[in-house]
Amino acid sequence: MDQQPFRKNSVHSGQSVNAIDTPALVIDLDAMERNLRVMQRFADQHHVKLRPHAKMHKSAALAQQQIGAGAVGVCVQKVSEALAMAQGGVRDIYVSNEIVLLSKLELLVSVFIGLESQNIKISIAVDSLEGIRNLAQALHNVDAQGSAQIHVFIEIDVGQARCGVPPGDAALPLAREIALYPRLHFAGLQAYHGRAQHQRTVAERRATLAQVMQDVQRTRDALKQAGFTVELVTGAGSGTFGIEAASGIFGELQAGSYLFMDADYAQNEADPAQPQFEHALFVKSHIMSVQPGRAVCDAGHKSHAIDSGLPRVHGRGDDLRYTSCSDEHGVLHGSTLPQLGEVIWLIPGHCDPTVNLHDHMIGVRGGLQHGVVERIIEVNARGALT
Amino acid sequence: MDQQPFRKNSVHSGQSVNAIDTPALVIDLDAMERNLRVMQRFADQHHVKLRPHAKMHKSAALAQQQIGAGAVGVCVQKVSEALAMAQGGVRDIYVSNEIVLLSKLELLVSVFIGLESQNIKISIAVDSLEGIRNLAQALHNVDAQGSAQIHVFIEIDVGQARCGVPPGDAALPLAREIALYPRLHFAGLQAYHGRAQHQRTVAERRATLAQVMQDVQRTRDALKQAGFTVELVTGAGSGTFGIEAASGIFGELQAGSYLFMDADYAQNEADPAQPQFEHALFVKSHIMSVQPGRAVCDAGHKSHAIDSGLPRVHGRGDDLRYTSCSDEHGVLHGSTLPQLGEVIWLIPGHCDPTVNLHDHMIGVRGGLQHGVVERIIEVNARGALT
Repeated sequence: MDQQPFRKNSVHSGQSVNAIDTPALVIDLDAMERNLRVMQRFADQHHVKLRPHAKMHKSAALAQQQIGAGAVGVCVQKVSEALAMAQGGVRDIYVSNEIVLLSKLELLVSVFIGLESQNIKISIAVDSLEGIRNLAQALHNVDAQGSAQIHVFIEIDVGQARCGVPPGDAALPLAREIALYPRLHFAGLQAYHGRAQHQRTVAERRATLAQVMQDVQRTRDALKQAGFTVELVTGAGSGTFGIEAASGIFGELQAGSYLFMDADYAQNEADPAQPQFEHALFVKSHIMSVQPGRAVCDAGHKSHAIDSGLPRVHGRGDDLRYTSCSDEHGVLHGSTLPQLGEVIWLIPGHCDPTVNLHDHMIGVRGGLQHGVVERIIEVNARGALT
Repeated sequence: MDQQPFRKNSVHSGQSVNAIDTPALVIDLDAMERNLRVMQRFADQHHVKLRPHAKMHKSAALAQQQIGAGAVGVCVQKVSEALAMAQGGVRDIYVSNEIVLLSKLELLVSVFIGLESQNIKISIAVDSLEGIRNLAQALHNVDAQGSAQIHVFIEIDVGQARCGVPPGDAALPLAREIALYPRLHFAGLQAYHGRAQHQRTVAERRATLAQVMQDVQRTRDALKQAGFTVELVTGAGSGTFGIEAASGIFGELQAGSYLFMDADYAQNEADPAQPQFEHALFVKSHIMSVQPGRAVCDAGHKSHAIDSGLPRVHGRGDDLRYTSCSDEHGVLHGSTLPQLGEVIWLIPGHCDPTVNLHDHMIGVRGGLQHGVVERIIEVNARGALT
C-alpha cells in the first residue's frame, strides 16, 4: 500500500464536489477570493498595511495569494510557522508572539540568515529583557560577522491579560535594551485585544477599543518622551479592524479570519464601519445514522474545533441544529431531519484550530452544490507547534 | 531546507528529556507500560477479551504493543483508521462505528481482501438496513468470487443517544438482513455508553450501567427468541470497564484511555472494582511570558484538546492552575508562579483528540525530570478522518 493514503482525500482537480470523501475541509474559492479582495480594498482605502495572520490558514499558498493582492507579509505565532512560511516563499514574516528560549531564537535566526540573500525580513514581538538579550545572543551565535537587522515590536497588554507589558512606562526598559544592540531595530508596538474581537455588540467593541487606544497612546507618549520613535503600531483582528483602521494610531492590521469567516465571528453584530465577509470554509460531512428523533453525522471535534462553540449547518437555519459533538460524531436535531447518507455542510465554530486538524483544504469553484474541485491547498504549517 | 522539518521535534533517541522542544507530546513509558500490564492482567483475570480502542492513540506501534501483551486486536472508528492500523501490521480490526456509504465500504473491503492471505479479520458495527446492504454490495463489487466473511455487530443505543437502534425488537430486522448474505457473519452486539464513563461517582456509573445491562439482555433475549445467537457483547470504556467485566454479559472490553489516563478521567471517583491507572501522557511546555499576577505558557489548544476541560499542571497541585487557553497560549495563575523559560508538564483534559493534534509522541524512560528519550512513536493515524 502507499504510505498514508488515508491522509489525502482521494479527490483531485476537475472532479465534482460530490467526489469529496467525508469529513473534509472545503473552501468555497469564489467566496474566499471575494473576502480577500474586500479586505485588501478596505486596507488600501484606509491607508493601513494589511499583514494577515497565517496562524489562521497555516498555508504558504494562501499567504502568497494574500501578498499578491497587496498584503505586506504575514504574521505567525511560532518559529515553526515562520519556517513553514519561509519554505513556501514568504519573504516578510512577523512573529507576533514572544519567543524567549535561545534554542528557538537560534533556529529563527538561522532561517533569516539562510535566506538573507533573498531579502527576507523577520520581525518579532518581545515583552521581557531576557527575550531581547536572547535574541541578540542568537544573532551573535548564528551569525557573528553579519549585519542584518531583526525588527522588534514591544508587546503591550491592552486588556487581553496574556502576554505583553502593562501600558505606559513599563515599555521603556525594553526599548532601552533593544537600543543596546545595533542588529535589533525597535520597530514599534504590538497591541492586540483578542477577546474584543468576539464581543457581540458594536458598542461593546467600541468601548473596549477606546481603552486600547488610550493604552497605546500613553505608551507611545512615554516612549517619545524618552527619545524613542514608534514607527508602527500593529494589531487588530477580524472583529474590530474597522476601528483600528480609522484610529490614526494603528498602521497595520493583523486580521486573519476574514478570509474564511467562522460561525463565531458571524454572531457579532455587524459594524457599519467595516465590510462584511462571507462564509468560505466548510466541513463536508454526511449522515451515518438516523434514529428516532435524531440524525448523526460523521464529523466530530477531530474534524472541526469546538473551543468557540459548535458548528452551524449551512443553509438549514434552525430546522436542523448540530446539538452535540464527540470525537468522531455530531448529533443533529431539528424539525427536518436529513436522510441516511445525505450530505451536510458545516460552518466551523472557529476556523484557526479547525484548519490545524487537516492536511489539506479542498478548493471548490462554482459553489458547494454543483461546483468543481479546482485546487488542493496544503496546510503546510499544520502541526507546526514549536 | 528539508521538507517540513518543523513537524518533527528535533529530538532523537538517547537524548535527555531536556532536549525536547516545546510544546511536545511526551509519553512516560514506564507509566504507560505499567498501565498496559495492569489492564491486560485485569481482563485475563475476568476472562474477558481486551480490544483497546485505537481511536485514542492512533498508533499502530502502540496497538502492536497492546496485542503483544494479550489484546485480541483493536477497535477503530473510521475506514482510514482501519487502513492505518492494517498498514502498521494489525490483523484484527473492528470498526466499532457505522460506515454506510458504498464508496467507503468498498475501500474497507479492498483492504480486507488485499490482506486476506495474511489472515486479517475485519468486523464492523451496523444500525441500518442500508448499511448492511451496502456492505454486502461492497463485498460483491470488490470481490465477487471470494468467500471471506466480515463480522457484523448490531449497535444498540444503551443511553448515549448517538448511533444504534433502540434496545429490544429493533435489532431483529437487522439480524434478519445480515442472515441474507452468506459473507456477513452476525457476531453480536455493540453496546457503549460514552457519557457513563465520565459520571463522577461510582454510584452514578453503576446505576447507568444497570440500565445498560437490562437493555443488552432484553435485546439478546429478543434475538434468541427469533433464533439468533449473540456470540459476543462488546463495549465498555476506561470509566466503567470493571462493571462490564464482572457482568457475565460483556465478553470484550474496548477501553482505550487507560493507557494514558487523562485529567478528565482522573476526576472520577475510584471504583474499587477496577484497577487505577497512572498519568502517562503529557504536554511539555515552557513559560514564554511572566507578567504581574500571571505566567503564560506556549501550549494552547492547538497542542492539547480542551473539549473535556483545561489541562492540569503536573506536580503542582492547586498552587499553579492553567486558567485559560487560546490557540497558542495557556495562562497560568497561582500562589507560586513559574519563572520565564521554566518547563511545565501539562496533563491534557482528553487524551484522544490531543494525540490527534500531533505527528509524534516522544517516549521517555526514567521519568520526566531526568529521563532519556527512548523512542519516537509515530501517530500514524493522525488526521485519518474519513
